[in-house]
Amino acid sequence: MEDVKRPWEKLVELIEADQPEQVKEYLQSMKTEDIVLSISRLEKKEQLLLLTLLSPEDAAELLDDIPEYHATDILEEMESSRAAAIFNELDSDEQADLLTEMNEKEATAIIEQMEPGEAESVRRLIKYEADTAGGLMITEFLSFDKEQTVGDVVHELRKNAEKYEDYNLQYIYVTAHGRLEGVLQMRDLLMASLQARLDVIVHSDVISVMDSATLHELINFVNDYDFYGVPVLNDDGVLLGVVLRSDILEAKSELASIELLETQGIVGGEELRTMPVLLRSRRRLSWLTVNIFLNVLAASVIAFHQDTLSSIIALAVFLPIISDMSGCSGNQAVAVSLRELSLGLIRPFEVARVWLQEFSVGLLNGIVLGVLIGAVAYLWKGSLVLSLIVGGALMLNTIVAVSIGGTIPLILRRFGADPALASGPILTTITDMFGFFLTLTFASLALTHFGTI
Amino acid sequence: MEDVKRPWEKLVELIEADQPEQVKEYLQSMKTEDIVLSISRLEKKEQLLLLTLLSPEDAAELLDDIPEYHATDILEEMESSRAAAIFNELDSDEQADLLTEMNEKEATAIIEQMEPGEAESVRRLIKYEADTAGGLMITEFLSFDKEQTVGDVVHELRKNAEKYEDYNLQYIYVTAHGRLEGVLQMRDLLMASLQARLDVIVHSDVISVMDSATLHELINFVNDYDFYGVPVLNDDGVLLGVVLRSDILEAKSELASIELLETQGIVGGEELRTMPVLLRSRRRLSWLTVNIFLNVLAASVIAFHQDTLSSIIALAVFLPIISDMSGCSGNQAVAVSLRELSLGLIRPFEVARVWLQEFSVGLLNGIVLGVLIGAVAYLWKGSLVLSLIVGGALMLNTIVAVSIGGTIPLILRRFGADPALASGPILTTITDMFGFFLTLTFASLALTHFGTI
Repeated sequence: MEDVKRPWEKLVELIEADQPEQVKEYLQSMKTEDIVLSISRLEKKEQLLLLTLLSPEDAAELLDDIPEYHATDILEEMESSRAAAIFNELDSDEQADLLTEMNEKEATAIIEQMEPGEAESVRRLIKYEADTAGGLMITEFLSFDKEQTVGDVVHELRKNAEKYEDYNLQYIYVTAHGRLEGVLQMRDLLMASLQARLDVIVHSDVISVMDSATLHELINFVNDYDFYGVPVLNDDGVLLGVVLRSDILEAKSELASIELLETQGIVGGEELRTMPVLLRSRRRLSWLTVNIFLNVLAASVIAFHQDTLSSIIALAVFLPIISDMSGCSGNQAVAVSLRELSLGLIRPFEVARVWLQEFSVGLLNGIVLGVLIGAVAYLWKGSLVLSLIVGGALMLNTIVAVSIGGTIPLILRRFGADPALASGPILTTITDMFGFFLTLTFASLALTHFGTI
Repeated sequence: MEDVKRPWEKLVELIEADQPEQVKEYLQSMKTEDIVLSISRLEKKEQLLLLTLLSPEDAAELLDDIPEYHATDILEEMESSRAAAIFNELDSDEQADLLTEMNEKEATAIIEQMEPGEAESVRRLIKYEADTAGGLMITEFLSFDKEQTVGDVVHELRKNAEKYEDYNLQYIYVTAHGRLEGVLQMRDLLMASLQARLDVIVHSDVISVMDSATLHELINFVNDYDFYGVPVLNDDGVLLGVVLRSDILEAKSELASIELLETQGIVGGEELRTMPVLLRSRRRLSWLTVNIFLNVLAASVIAFHQDTLSSIIALAVFLPIISDMSGCSGNQAVAVSLRELSLGLIRPFEVARVWLQEFSVGLLNGIVLGVLIGAVAYLWKGSLVLSLIVGGALMLNTIVAVSIGGTIPLILRRFGADPALASGPILTTITDMFGFFLTLTFASLALTHFGTI
């Protein structure tokens, strides 16, 4: 175990020895995975010391790798002039992401001390929502006026080769007064003569998106077209930036990951265990406290049937089983609906279709699970009536659970609510109530009929 | 609603009217989203008819858009010569993905009728696991011998412009006897003279991956380096193909989505509701039947305390609440651990660290939830002892739940098991047992002490 722990201990040693060169070398030798882990393990003052030791370029590269929460946390503690120097070196989309996460006062102070060009561009970018084309785009792209020639482009590329080193130069955009006219690939330039005017060789059937396009639209766009980066335009057709395919896919994968957190009851954004305990506790409680009242509501069904329960105390053993198993069956249906919604294989209004498809699976699984739990009841108590009560209740409630689980995400989506977050609690409340009601009603009917079971 | 339903109805009309041109035109006017949905709604024979109406090129494009399960399902029904013609038009990674999903006899028949070059390349590709560099790579890349010149490249690009239309030509690979020597970007060629030999201008510090690299390694690779596509080599350093950044990110996002299905109990691969009912039922049951026996195990704790329960029947109302709430708290901790594991912010052996971080949140949330449920008990029954029993049990069990929920994914990962799949059932079984045990033991102590409560 000592071996695996070493990276951040070694890093702290080097930081405390105040050896910038060695720190830099050591960071370069590390994998991003280890860097992310190590930075998260440093004390706040060690993190600050580290970013001060590094050049703004290297500090920017480091911040680019670590989670945003950690990056803003360090930047907020830093002198704003120093932070501004680091921001100057970040990609434009990263600048905007971090600044919108920071407290406004700090952010404003930093922007004021950034290079005028960078500051102007970031002021424009932070106005966009993060998950829109405007929020995802980078402003590092290459555009030339349509009257320029291939030779002009080659000249510009040679002259500023260093600047363009980090640019993604798959495409060259051709504009007229800032308005996008068309696109050229590098290979088009390679195959043309140096004298050729850009408007002669340009492909004018260029695809583009509006700066207000949502992530959902961009994900569809990725499916509809093959592209490496897509130009982003404002209402007037002016070229503002480029959204890279890989940035859309990163955002999509982040979305799936946030959905996973939500279905398990982590709300209000991601949770990292390095966040303050009170914040973590509060966010988790906001979901748990809603849930506990839904649970009390469901359990009130049991309270209404206490007499029945006193007569057949064995039922108390089966109530939590029926509640949990129905929740499991229902959550399976929720998961399939969430996935089919995100793949576009069902539409929010197709409740009846989904219900039919779930019903058949629910019937089969209900029979199997009902027989299993009935067998357990019979083996334990030797009572056929008891086994019919619990088996029948679980069978019927499995059908109820998959019906609700399959359809509730569609209904929530239709009403604009977030299905990943709300489906679970709504599902379990209804299936608990139904499960308890079925079990205890069957039992009370049996009691009326047989006197005892 | 009629309006939104139209796409596949219109498509069926055109297919049945046997009008290839109009079908093609209509498909081209549709968004990918609508195509995916429409194809999934066609009858098997309509799907077959559609693919026969289209040219192999257009059919290939269509298959590229729809889920693999649907694509293989149609292809298996098709004459193998016709299917082979379509396969010839697919990208190499897509060919391999579909063929490995098909039944072996059909797949072999198709490969035998593909173009010899395509068949040879796909025979090599299907040997790789899907989630490795070999399985994800495409073989459509451009490579030149190091002794060739920039002029040779330009000549080749001009001569076969049409063939390279669909290639991603960000990089040109430079080889010697098939072995990768270095890489050139298009812009390097643009800035060099036509007479320059490739080995003079080549960048030889090229990054590459082995064909056996796992998806996990590739995801780290994406984080470590900026690249558009990375060359894939075999043990001898021979260039086999290229893995695109966007394909790695797609696979990553698919992984997050599968993880979401697994945590909710969908196992054995994705489920689409268009799959056969028996298959869907069997896959879901394989998880549910394990769960029901774990549930019986947990509930057996109640069975051992039936006497206590008969004396204080109100407890039966609270047992399911304590079970469900502890499950919720524990699952939140599971979700955070799954995410921190995938972000590389914790390592599987850091159980003690995670436990400490969960304990503090568990203590806070336990107190809040315990007080809430205690208050409900007091308001309902007016018994301070009852409210202390259920409040105390939920408080303690919340701490137990977050401790287990936080650490179990790490422990499972350490033993090579899939934490997304197994964490939930293990968690709820243990927390149920503990919750029931705490509640009923407190109650029986209270009964011994006070005689009644």
